[in-house]
Amino acid sequence: MTLQLFYTPDISPHDKVYVLNEEESKHAIRVLRLAEGHAVYLVDGKGGQYRGIITHAHPKRTAITIEDFKPDYEKRNYYLHIAVAPTKNIDRIEWFLEKATEVGIDEITPIICEHSERKEVKPERLNKVMVAAMKQSLKAYLPKLNETVKLTDFLKKDGEPQKFIAHCANGEKRYLTDGIKVAGRYVILIGPEGDFSVPEIRLAVEAGYMPITLGSSRLRTETAALVACLEAAIGNR
Amino acid sequence: MTLQLFYTPDISPHDKVYVLNEEESKHAIRVLRLAEGHAVYLVDGKGGQYRGIITHAHPKRTAITIEDFKPDYEKRNYYLHIAVAPTKNIDRIEWFLEKATEVGIDEITPIICEHSERKEVKPERLNKVMVAAMKQSLKAYLPKLNETVKLTDFLKKDGEPQKFIAHCANGEKRYLTDGIKVAGRYVILIGPEGDFSVPEIRLAVEAGYMPITLGSSRLRTETAALVACLEAAIGNR
Repeated sequence: MTLQLFYTPDISPHDKVYVLNEEESKHAIRVLRLAEGHAVYLVDGKGGQYRGIITHAHPKRTAITIEDFKPDYEKRNYYLHIAVAPTKNIDRIEWFLEKATEVGIDEITPIICEHSERKEVKPERLNKVMVAAMKQSLKAYLPKLNETVKLTDFLKKDGEPQKFIAHCANGEKRYLTDGIKVAGRYVILIGPEGDFSVPEIRLAVEAGYMPITLGSSRLRTETAALVACLEAAIGNR
Repeated sequence: MTLQLFYTPDISPHDKVYVLNEEESKHAIRVLRLAEGHAVYLVDGKGGQYRGIITHAHPKRTAITIEDFKPDYEKRNYYLHIAVAPTKNIDRIEWFLEKATEVGIDEITPIICEHSERKEVKPERLNKVMVAAMKQSLKAYLPKLNETVKLTDFLKKDGEPQKFIAHCANGEKRYLTDGIKVAGRYVILIGPEGDFSVPEIRLAVEAGYMPITLGSSRLRTETAALVACLEAAIGNR
């Protein structure tokens, strides 16, 4: 029997019974054909995982009796913020968000760079992709999607204690796995299809960003962003 | 100006001039609008990278004069064979092949397992995806796609010196980055959506496969396969 997981951002640890909204109730009863007595998971997207049993299988207001609550479910020991230039073909960033949610990410900021071909994204659509990925991979944390900003404005922010920029231009670079402090907080910049411009790289370095390489291969934007997530995971084992 | 790369498996290091076939000539002249004097790269898929100049821009037989030849272009120091159960939705395996070609893979075998929902793949389509990814990422090696086989038959082969199986069942496991010998040859088994069955895992261990974990997250088949490629790359730095 496949485990079913629902995203219920308004659930609270005090709840003894939680009633799914109309859309989720319909999905649970009409599509998944869940019945009374069926065990399900509810997650709040902030680390809270609830295990419950369907006690009223109603297609508009299905009631779930909560039996167990785990806070900070599978909390990682590091915090990862990726600031990435949206790809021209938005499918590629959606793919990145799906995979990053699976392997571990906390925060994403779409950044507009000098060489960006795409200047805007639809956050609703991207959030939907992440919710689906969170459910699929049975996680309890939903990554936070920030508003799209210009790189030059992003660089003015304080950001995280450890800052990195992945670029393909010449210059001295480290591997992310060698550069990160374990159990730290990181922000990593990933450029657009045409890479960061040289002035952008200089600005980032002046703002405290350490240049890194993600290996010798030329990687697409979304691949580079995912490789950064994986390197952070491996560097924190 | 974007670099243009053509896949020309029949080119040889002795060629002074290479003539693109009709399809590639048409693409070069009519679609990419390349003209005489334009620099292009040709790769043979076996590590040979040729730099040339268009000396006859003909839409049916474009001639390229070879100016430089590099054998073993960007050859990696390890050999990676991934044997992976094709996903129910074939897009997901195509995606894996694209990304794996970018980050580094040598050989792929589709394997049919007890829990496989998909029992066959179309090799032409998958090869096409890998050729496109090789061109996009300016590589000179085309990964080798083997015929689809049953896992039980695959386990009877000698395989590579270092053998691994990534599974989600209980038991002692290592990280791939800790288990691999640097600059070695590896084969890694990645299971279907429902994972390997317990008898399959036992058979693999009896055949010399070392159980590994790809981290604490539940990963989709294609994500797990790509994570394995990245761990091999990182473990070989």
